[in-house]
Amino acid sequence: MKADERAIRDLVDTWHRATAAGDTDTVLGLMADDALFLVPGQEPFGKEAFANASRGQQDIQVEGTSEIEELEIAGDWAWLRSRVAVTMTPPNGEPQRRRGYALTILRRRPDGRWALARDANLLAPAPG
Amino acid sequence: MKADERAIRDLVDTWHRATAAGDTDTVLGLMADDALFLVPGQEPFGKEAFANASRGQQDIQVEGTSEIEELEIAGDWAWLRSRVAVTMTPPNGEPQRRRGYALTILRRRPDGRWALARDANLLAPAPG
Repeated sequence: MKADERAIRDLVDTWHRATAAGDTDTVLGLMADDALFLVPGQEPFGKEAFANASRGQQDIQVEGTSEIEELEIAGDWAWLRSRVAVTMTPPNGEPQRRRGYALTILRRRPDGRWALARDANLLAPAPG
Repeated sequence: MKADERAIRDLVDTWHRATAAGDTDTVLGLMADDALFLVPGQEPFGKEAFANASRGQQDIQVEGTSEIEELEIAGDWAWLRSRVAVTMTPPNGEPQRRRGYALTILRRRPDGRWALARDANLLAPAPG
């Protein structure tokens, strides 16, 4: 596996581990300052809105798996398609399961590290 | 505007004009044979399923607008984010409006033409 592919797979692993650990700062460090998140039925939102939402969900337990089904790298850009399953459990609440795919664009920073730049999240509620 | 950007914008224009005209063959000609379409709550589907769905909707009037909000080209790959509004009107039925964004990956073919390779469609029902 080439260095760029390894770096991107590591980024995705770190993203999901940090999300599960509620470590919002680490997640924010993996995205570009101008990152945009696309979800159905909403306007795209950026890093600050992502941070506010994550910090407002600190008491929600998040567990998930992500499998990269394809990954292409072209110069300073890369894209990947992943199959994602997430379970979010609020305190004293029922687990909420979502499953689906994400299409993600990454960009190489000037210092060589990769960063998430765009993320289209197509997860939908799934039966428990 | 550079030639690749012009070619990709022309592809998107042609895609929407052909869709509105019910010209499925033209739309199919603008996508890679291994194209994949991602929509919320479904498994990704490919060119054949796209063709079957389009041909099954020949009697539905489709009108839409699409605005490319950003476009990046890196070698033989490109990605774009577009804001899309579509109104589908079945015969003797009420118009159904959907609005939202799409994140699209394109690939340069060996002959130099661009083709749609992946499309994440985040449109959601919108009030009329």
